Amino acid sequence: MEIVLAAGKAPALDTGDTAWLLAATALVLLMTPGLALFYGGMVRTKSVLNMLMMSFVSIALVTVVWLTAGYSLAFGGDSAGGLIGGLKHVGMADIGPQSLHGSVPTLLFATFQLTFAIITAALVSGAVADRAKFGAWLVFVPVWALLVYVPVAHWVWGPGGWILAHLGALDFAGGLPVEITSGASGLALCLVLGPRLGFKKDAMRPHNLPMVMLGAGLLWFGWFGFNAGSALGASGLAAAAFLNTLAAGCTGLLGWLFVEQKRDGHPTTLGAASGAVAGLVAITPSCGTVSLLGALVVGLAAGAVCSYAVSWKFKLNYDDSLDVVGVHLVGGVIGTLLIGLFAVEDMTGGAKGLLYGGGPALLGKQLLAVVVVAGYAFAVTYALGKVIDKLMGFRASEEQEHTGLDLTVHAETAYDHGVLGHGAPVAHSAAQKVTSQA
Amino acid sequence: MEIVLAAGKAPALDTGDTAWLLAATALVLLMTPGLALFYGGMVRTKSVLNMLMMSFVSIALVTVVWLTAGYSLAFGGDSAGGLIGGLKHVGMADIGPQSLHGSVPTLLFATFQLTFAIITAALVSGAVADRAKFGAWLVFVPVWALLVYVPVAHWVWGPGGWILAHLGALDFAGGLPVEITSGASGLALCLVLGPRLGFKKDAMRPHNLPMVMLGAGLLWFGWFGFNAGSALGASGLAAAAFLNTLAAGCTGLLGWLFVEQKRDGHPTTLGAASGAVAGLVAITPSCGTVSLLGALVVGLAAGAVCSYAVSWKFKLNYDDSLDVVGVHLVGGVIGTLLIGLFAVEDMTGGAKGLLYGGGPALLGKQLLAVVVVAGYAFAVTYALGKVIDKLMGFRASEEQEHTGLDLTVHAETAYDHGVLGHGAPVAHSAAQKVTSQA
Amino acid sequence: MEIVLAAGKAPALDTGDTAWLLAATALVLLMTPGLALFYGGMVRTKSVLNMLMMSFVSIALVTVVWLTAGYSLAFGGDSAGGLIGGLKHVGMADIGPQSLHGSVPTLLFATFQLTFAIITAALVSGAVADRAKFGAWLVFVPVWALLVYVPVAHWVWGPGGWILAHLGALDFAGGLPVEITSGASGLALCLVLGPRLGFKKDAMRPHNLPMVMLGAGLLWFGWFGFNAGSALGASGLAAAAFLNTLAAGCTGLLGWLFVEQKRDGHPTTLGAASGAVAGLVAITPSCGTVSLLGALVVGLAAGAVCSYAVSWKFKLNYDDSLDVVGVHLVGGVIGTLLIGLFAVEDMTGGAKGLLYGGGPALLGKQLLAVVVVAGYAFAVTYALGKVIDKLMGFRASEEQEHTGLDLTVHAETAYDHGVLGHGAPVAHSAAQKVTSQA
Repeated sequence: MEIVLAAGKAPALDTGDTAWLLAATALVLLMTPGLALFYGGMVRTKSVLNMLMMSFVSIALVTVVWLTAGYSLAFGGDSAGGLIGGLKHVGMADIGPQSLHGSVPTLLFATFQLTFAIITAALVSGAVADRAKFGAWLVFVPVWALLVYVPVAHWVWGPGGWILAHLGALDFAGGLPVEITSGASGLALCLVLGPRLGFKKDAMRPHNLPMVMLGAGLLWFGWFGFNAGSALGASGLAAAAFLNTLAAGCTGLLGWLFVEQKRDGHPTTLGAASGAVAGLVAITPSCGTVSLLGALVVGLAAGAVCSYAVSWKFKLNYDDSLDVVGVHLVGGVIGTLLIGLFAVEDMTGGAKGLLYGGGPALLGKQLLAVVVVAGYAFAVTYALGKVIDKLMGFRASEEQEHTGLDLTVHAETAYDHGVLGHGAPVAHSAAQKVTSQA
Repeated sequence: MEIVLAAGKAPALDTGDTAWLLAATALVLLMTPGLALFYGGMVRTKSVLNMLMMSFVSIALVTVVWLTAGYSLAFGGDSAGGLIGGLKHVGMADIGPQSLHGSVPTLLFATFQLTFAIITAALVSGAVADRAKFGAWLVFVPVWALLVYVPVAHWVWGPGGWILAHLGALDFAGGLPVEITSGASGLALCLVLGPRLGFKKDAMRPHNLPMVMLGAGLLWFGWFGFNAGSALGASGLAAAAFLNTLAAGCTGLLGWLFVEQKRDGHPTTLGAASGAVAGLVAITPSCGTVSLLGALVVGLAAGAVCSYAVSWKFKLNYDDSLDVVGVHLVGGVIGTLLIGLFAVEDMTGGAKGLLYGGGPALLGKQLLAVVVVAGYAFAVTYALGKVIDKLMGFRASEEQEHTGLDLTVHAETAYDHGVLGHGAPVAHSAAQKVTSQA
Repeated sequence: MEIVLAAGKAPALDTGDTAWLLAATALVLLMTPGLALFYGGMVRTKSVLNMLMMSFVSIALVTVVWLTAGYSLAFGGDSAGGLIGGLKHVGMADIGPQSLHGSVPTLLFATFQLTFAIITAALVSGAVADRAKFGAWLVFVPVWALLVYVPVAHWVWGPGGWILAHLGALDFAGGLPVEITSGASGLALCLVLGPRLGFKKDAMRPHNLPMVMLGAGLLWFGWFGFNAGSALGASGLAAAAFLNTLAAGCTGLLGWLFVEQKRDGHPTTLGAASGAVAGLVAITPSCGTVSLLGALVVGLAAGAVCSYAVSWKFKLNYDDSLDVVGVHLVGGVIGTLLIGLFAVEDMTGGAKGLLYGGGPALLGKQLLAVVVVAGYAFAVTYALGKVIDKLMGFRASEEQEHTGLDLTVHAETAYDHGVLGHGAPVAHSAAQKVTSQA
C-alpha cells in the first residue's frame, strides 16, 4: 500500500470507485428489465410477453457473445488502426480478480461495458414489435452485437479507437454506440420486416400505461448508473454527470408535454415518459462534457424535437413501432451534436464547444462521427436483416401476428383473470395450452 | 494526496463517501416513481394516469426550481437570521465539478437534497387525488416548492438555519421539511379543493393493490438512500440509520396489522403497506438520533396510531384521499417528538432524550419545531391554494371528475385490453382519442 | 489514520467497502418485494394478495427475531462446537455505530445478513401458495427462522461454524442456508399441508406474467447485492462474483428455454424467468469460488435440470406450488456440488475443485454439507409444521381456498376495475367489504 500512496492512485484499486461502479453496473443491468416493461406496456395485450422476451433473451445472448469474443474485440487493444480490437482477451483470457482497469477491477469494467451492449440490442426490438419471428431474433441478436455494437464501441471507447483517439469527437456515455446505433439499426430492421398489419389504420394503443410509467421510472433510475457510472469512479465528474442526467430528463419531459399541449390540447402520460426518455437519450453522450445550462437545453431540445419526430413514421411509412428512431436516433443525434456547442473545459479537461469559445471544429467532429456511426449501423443491420430473412424468414406469419405472438409463439397469455376480482368466472379459451408450471 | 493524509479527510473528496451518496441519490430519486405507483394503485381506474402524472411532473418542475433558485435559498449561506438562505448560488453559480461539501462533491450534495424536495411535492398530491385541475397543479408545485419546502429545508439543514443551529431541535432525514410539511400542506390543499364527489358515500377501493405493494416496496428500498444517505458518507452512523430504517418499517407494519386484526377482524395488504410507510415516515427524523430500541418503538407507535388517524377524515370531513395527513403528518409528528425521548449520545454526538437521561428540554424543542413547521406549511399552502383557485380554478369540473381525469385531461386510459388474454375482443369506446404514439 | 496505513486495512472502517455493502444491503432487501411479485404473478387472481402478504410479513417478523436473538445465535461467537452461536449480542447488545466487522460497521454486517434470513423465509411461502392459514404463517416464520435458518447460517458463516471452519466445505453467498434450506423446508411444508384443491386437475395458470417478469427483473438486480455483497467489500472478488452472477443467470435462462423448445415446442416467458432464477440460485454458493467457465456451466446445468425438476411434483404428488423444490432445492444442490468441480485457487484463496487439480476431497465435503443441511431443514420444518397444524391448523378452510384467500382472509381483492378502461361499468360484488382506507 505504501507504493500506492507514493505513486498516486493509478495502479491500485480504489474501493470507493469500485463501490460506485459495482452499484452502477447493477443499475444499468436493471435498465433492460425496465425497458422490457416500458416496451411491454406500449404494445397490445396479445404480444406483451413476446416484447418482454425479446429484452430478456438479449441479456442472455449478448452476455455470452461478450464473454467469448465481444469484450476482447471492443476493448482488447487495437488491431486495425482504430477499427477493431484484438483477440488477446477472447474468453476473458488473462483477466483475473486482481486485474485492474484504472482504479477498478478489469472484470468490473468489462461487466459494466457488457450491460451497455445488452440494452443496445434490446432497444432495437422496439422497432419490430408484434411481428418478428422469435427464432430469427435469437439469431439476429448475437450476430448484430458482434458486427455492429462491438466495432462502434471500439471506435468510441476502445484503446486507440478512431473516433475518440484519432478524430477527437466526444461521447461520454454512449450517444454513438448505444443511442444512434440502436436507432439506426431499428430503422433498418423495421424496413426489412415491413409494417404491422393494420399500421396507420388500427388504433394500436398501449395496453397498460402504468406499466410504461413503471418502466420509465426504472429506466431513469438505472440511467444514473449508466451516465454517472461512465466516469468510472466516485468523482466530481460523476456527480456532474449525475445532475446533468436528472436535469435533461426533466426538461425533456417538460418540452414534450409543452408541445403536446400546444399541438394536441392535452398532455399525456405516454408523452411524459417519452419526453423524459428523449432527454435522457440526448444527455447520454453529453452528460460528462456539457455545462448544467447545456444539459437543460439538451433535454429541452430533445423533448420538443422528438415529440415531432415520432410522427415521421406515419408520413414516411416505416413502422418503427415503439419509436426507436424517433427517440433514440433523433435524441442521440441531438445530444451528440450539441456537445459541439455546450462542451465546457472543466468537464472535458480540454475541448470546448462553440458557445464556450471553442470554435466550430468540435461540432464538425461530432457531426462526422454521427454520420459514420449511423450509416454503418444502418447498412450492416439492413444487410444482416435481409440475410436472416432470406435464410429463415424474419417475419412472423399473418396468422401469428393476427392472433398475437404470445399465444402462438410462447403458448402463454399475459393475463389470466379466470376469476376476476368481482367473483365472475370467465371461460378459458380452449386454444390455450397449459404451461408446464402451474 | 499526502496533504490529505496529513490534514485528515475534511478538505478532500472521499471516494467511499461519494460512492454511497451517488447510490443513495439514485435511490431517493426512485422513490418518486415508487410513490406514483403507490398512489396510482390506490385510486380508481379512471384517474390512475393523472395520479402518476402529478408525481412525474413534480420531478421536472421541482428540479427546475431547485437549480434556478431553490438550492441557493435553502443551502447558500444565510441571509435573515436563520429564516432563509442567500442568492450566491442562484443558477448553481460558483459550483463546479471540483467543489466539495465535506467529503463529497457539492453538486452531489445539491442533487441529493433536490430529490428530497421532489418527493415532498409529490407527496402532497395524495391529498387531492381524482379532482385537481392539472394546469393548477403545474402552477402550484414550483411556487409551493419555493415558498414552503425551501424555507423549511433552510431552517432545518441550511447553514445557520434557526431550527438546528439556534433552537437545537434534531431532524436527521426530514421529519420536518418532508413529512410534516407534506402532511400539513396536504391537509390545507384538500380543504381548499373540498371532497371528491361521492366521498363517504361510494366505495372508493384501490383499483390495483399489487401496484400499491410494488410502490411500497420501491419506497422502502429508496428510503434506505433517503435515511442512511443523510449521513452524507459511508459511516457507522449511516449503518445505524439504515438498520433503524428497516426496524421501524417492520414494527410499523406489525403495529398497523395488529390494530386491524383486533378492530376489523382481518389484516389487509393496504394496511401492511400503509403500516410500513407509517413506520418509515416516523423513523425519518429519528433514524440517525435514536437507539435501536427507540427505532422499534417509533415504528410500532406510528403504525398503530396512524392506523387510527387515517379514519379521522371521515369524522372531521376532510377528504385527504390517500392519507397524506393520517400517515405523513401524524407519523412525522410522532417520529420528530419521540427523538425527545429516545435520542442517544452515540448517535447525536451530544443531545440525549428524556429516557436516556437528557431531561425534557429536547422534547420541548422538538415540539416547538413541529408546531411552527406544521403551522407554516399549512398556512402558506392554504393561502397559495386559495390564490390559485381564485386565479384559474384548482378543481376539475364535475364532468371531468365523474368521467375520470385520465380520459378528460390526458386523453388516455390506463388499460386497454382491446383483446383480452382470452381472445375475446372488446369494442373500443368511440370517446377515446388515439394518442400520437401507437 | 497513520496507524491504519501502517497496520493495513483491518482495524479501520473503509468507506468504499462500506459504501458497497450499504448499497448491497438495500439491493438484497428489494429482493423480497421482488419475490412477492414473482410469486404473486404466478398464482391465480383470487390469492395474489395473500401471496404478497406472506413475503411482506416475513420482512417484519424475521427482522424482529434477528434483532432480538437471531443475529447473536448465528454470529455471536460459538457456544457448542460449531453448532450454534452465543448470547452475547442478544438484543444487539454491545454493538454500536462504531463497532467494526472487518472494514465495515458491525451494524451493517448484521443488517446485510438479516436480509438473507428474510428472503429465505419468504421463499418457503411459494410451496404453500393459495392454502396456508395466514395466522399459522405468522407463527411459523419466526419459529422457523430461529430453529432452521439461524443454526444453518451459523454452521456456514458463523465464527467456528462446523461446515466452513471444521469441515471446510465452501459456500460463498448462501447455497446452504438460503437455497437448500428454503427448498427442503418448502418440501416439508407442502407435505404437511397437502396439495391445493384441484391440483393436477385444474389449469392453475399464472394470472399475470408481466408481474412475474417484473419480479424476476427485481430479483436479478438484487441478486448482485446478494452475491457480490457477500465479498463484504468493494474488491476484485466482488467483481468476479458479480460477473459470475450475471453469467450464470444468462446460461440458466438459455438452458431452460432450450429444453422447453425441444420438449414442448415453445419457449415461454415463465421458462425464461424460471431459468434465470435457477441459474442465479445455483451460482449463489459458487459465485465467489468458481471460474467464469464454471459459472457458465453451473447456470446452464441448473437451467436445464431444473426445467425437468419442476415436473417431479406431478409424478411424486407433492404440491410444491411455485416450485421452491424444483428451483431452489435442486438449483442449490447443483451449485453447491459443482464447487467441488470448478473451484479455482485465485477465488477461494486455497481450495481447488476436481477439474482444476484439487482432487475429489472438496466434492465430498460439499456433498456432506448438502445432505446434512437438507436433512436438517426438512426434518425440523416438517416437525414444526406438524406441531403448528396440531395446535391451530395450518391449512385454510375449503371454503376459503375455493373463494380465494384474498377476499376471505384479507377482505380485499387485488384488482377492482369498477370502471374499466373502456368506460363499461362493472357491478361490484356485494360480498366485498369496504376497507377502511378508500
